[in-house]
Amino acid sequence: MPLDPWYVTGLADGEGCFCISFAIRAKLRTGLEVRPSFSLSLNEKDLGLLEDLQAFFGCGWIRESKGDRTFKYEVRSIGDLTGVVVPHFERFPLRGYKARSCAGFSHVCRMVEQGDHLQRVGLREIVGVAYQTSLGKRRHSEAALLKVLDEVKG
Amino acid sequence: MPLDPWYVTGLADGEGCFCISFAIRAKLRTGLEVRPSFSLSLNEKDLGLLEDLQAFFGCGWIRESKGDRTFKYEVRSIGDLTGVVVPHFERFPLRGYKARSCAGFSHVCRMVEQGDHLQRVGLREIVGVAYQTSLGKRRHSEAALLKVLDEVKG
Repeated sequence: MPLDPWYVTGLADGEGCFCISFAIRAKLRTGLEVRPSFSLSLNEKDLGLLEDLQAFFGCGWIRESKGDRTFKYEVRSIGDLTGVVVPHFERFPLRGYKARSCAGFSHVCRMVEQGDHLQRVGLREIVGVAYQTSLGKRRHSEAALLKVLDEVKG
Repeated sequence: MPLDPWYVTGLADGEGCFCISFAIRAKLRTGLEVRPSFSLSLNEKDLGLLEDLQAFFGCGWIRESKGDRTFKYEVRSIGDLTGVVVPHFERFPLRGYKARSCAGFSHVCRMVEQGDHLQRVGLREIVGVAYQTSLGKRRHSEAALLKVLDEVKG
């Protein structure tokens, strides 16, 4: 039996993670790479449920996190994020505090799809939204990322 | 907007807890008290969501866990468990590994409702089911509880 869309939203409100990670890349014109991802980690006993989730969305991958006996379902492709994941959460919205992160995530994904992350002005906005809406833990501080943007030739 | 029943099941598959706790009570005829509970804990930022959950089920209480900045929604009344919580999860079943605990929980709740926990034979079955289906962390080992049952006058 396929998962009910509201079930998926309920599970994601508890266990889902909307994340924008940034990598400093000297070779890129903007100096920064943006990587949005939606993921959901569960105990290894629930691998079958992650497979149901993968079948529900029709995209994404499952991989093992050997350290803590969990498996993670993850969508990274920007086309799958804007074409499948974001529309799902717009139609069946989260009800908890995470809804705020999800809204910021949707905004960033659409900007990346339009190529806004390739320009300094767009990238600056993306960094701001990601930090304002708690989109995951990041290696770099917001100030460090903005400094990279200021230093490259725009 | 009220919560969708499948949303509630999805959230519970991640964050819900079906628990049977036991207390050794010398004054009880069987020597053991059985306390079933359904609970769901979330970060303090999601207190509003727990209130939506309380409104959805129309029973239970919310209390603060000051140590870890969470709030817990909990149903302990056996009438509410067998009349509201158990029927919900039978109609909108869990999809993950926790479904097994939920089935054991439903079985124990119905036994308690019928008064089976007041007889040694019923209580022995309840202890077995609770330990076989991982119904929460317990202070006492299964062997210790069965020893109490053996020692009281049945």
